[in-house]
Amino acid sequence: MKKRTEVSEAVIRRLPKYYKCIEKLINEDKEKASSKELSKEMGMTSSQIRQDLNNFGCFGVQGYGYNLGLLFKEIENILGLDKGYRCIIIGAGNLGSALLNSKEFKKHKFDFLAIFDNNKEKIGKSVGTFKVKDIKNLKEYINAEKVDIAVLAVPDNAVMKNYLELLNSNITGIWNFTQTKIESKGNIKVETVHLVENIMTLAYKMNAVNKNIVEGE
Amino acid sequence: MKKRTEVSEAVIRRLPKYYKCIEKLINEDKEKASSKELSKEMGMTSSQIRQDLNNFGCFGVQGYGYNLGLLFKEIENILGLDKGYRCIIIGAGNLGSALLNSKEFKKHKFDFLAIFDNNKEKIGKSVGTFKVKDIKNLKEYINAEKVDIAVLAVPDNAVMKNYLELLNSNITGIWNFTQTKIESKGNIKVETVHLVENIMTLAYKMNAVNKNIVEGE
Repeated sequence: MKKRTEVSEAVIRRLPKYYKCIEKLINEDKEKASSKELSKEMGMTSSQIRQDLNNFGCFGVQGYGYNLGLLFKEIENILGLDKGYRCIIIGAGNLGSALLNSKEFKKHKFDFLAIFDNNKEKIGKSVGTFKVKDIKNLKEYINAEKVDIAVLAVPDNAVMKNYLELLNSNITGIWNFTQTKIESKGNIKVETVHLVENIMTLAYKMNAVNKNIVEGE
Repeated sequence: MKKRTEVSEAVIRRLPKYYKCIEKLINEDKEKASSKELSKEMGMTSSQIRQDLNNFGCFGVQGYGYNLGLLFKEIENILGLDKGYRCIIIGAGNLGSALLNSKEFKKHKFDFLAIFDNNKEKIGKSVGTFKVKDIKNLKEYINAEKVDIAVLAVPDNAVMKNYLELLNSNITGIWNFTQTKIESKGNIKVETVHLVENIMTLAYKMNAVNKNIVEGE
């Protein structure tokens, strides 16, 4: 596979949007789309779309457009969604339970296999069809079950202990819902969900109306 | 106030990061910072930082840097965080409960005032220190309590009914946790939390390691 370099964070963040948009078009039995058609769906300019997709070696054919099947396969491959990911959740509170019970992740091949907690009152209790497992067995479970991703849905005072344990396991991805800053290290990649920043972006948009700050594209 | 125009989505999305970064520096008793210092904190280049902040009329002084107090006030003002936001949650499931119980939002002046549901088994029950209110009283409550933001944490089949009701209320912001696509309309601005897209970004990073795709900045 050829080496792809210097893909900007902004483009990376748009890839899942392309994936979902193209999946939708394929589900509507469409086989091809021009950058103009994609631009309508994505809410971006055609030239931005051509530029983005060129980054990944996906070239449209003049007068034909993009072959959606090929494009989907390529983006699926770039995101590694063809093989799927085995995930566990650490923290059996409301957030962990909400994630475990959501059907959206499984649809896109993120399989949630188990949920862990250190609270004796929670261990053994049911969350949907799962029983909460003892955090003591975390590392053993990860290695035996070949888990790829651990979701951190614990209080902030518990993050570092769990993080250090994950560093010693075979995990390769951490999805961090805590306020604690964790950075990718070695083979372990980290993605943090910044909910506070997200509601601040909403605040910006609401506030921009009053102040004539124009919303971005 | 001067009219600010054409601020890109990428810059808008970075504003909350600037806000939190500058807040942190101020809490460490720092009064000023160069774009180079900010660059270390933000994990971005100095020139990108100067460019971003110029968008909002925040100019650093050569040889002095940025006055953090002024910069913080300006960004706080742009985000409307100086006055704060009154919020309610629709949907008293695990996700709604997790958001209601989090302390992070209040810290940044997003005040969660109430939680609503249409499920008779949930209405009147406690979620932390709150009692779940009947969705029937939603509009009345919003208008009486001058609510700014409604958080949609309901199943997808319930979204449109709630959305239409919100359109008829005095709400000005919707924070959407559902999979249903809702767009800003008139005075109502919408921000959607795309959790599936977020975990796909993690997948990209994990997958990029194996394929020599270089991570963006």
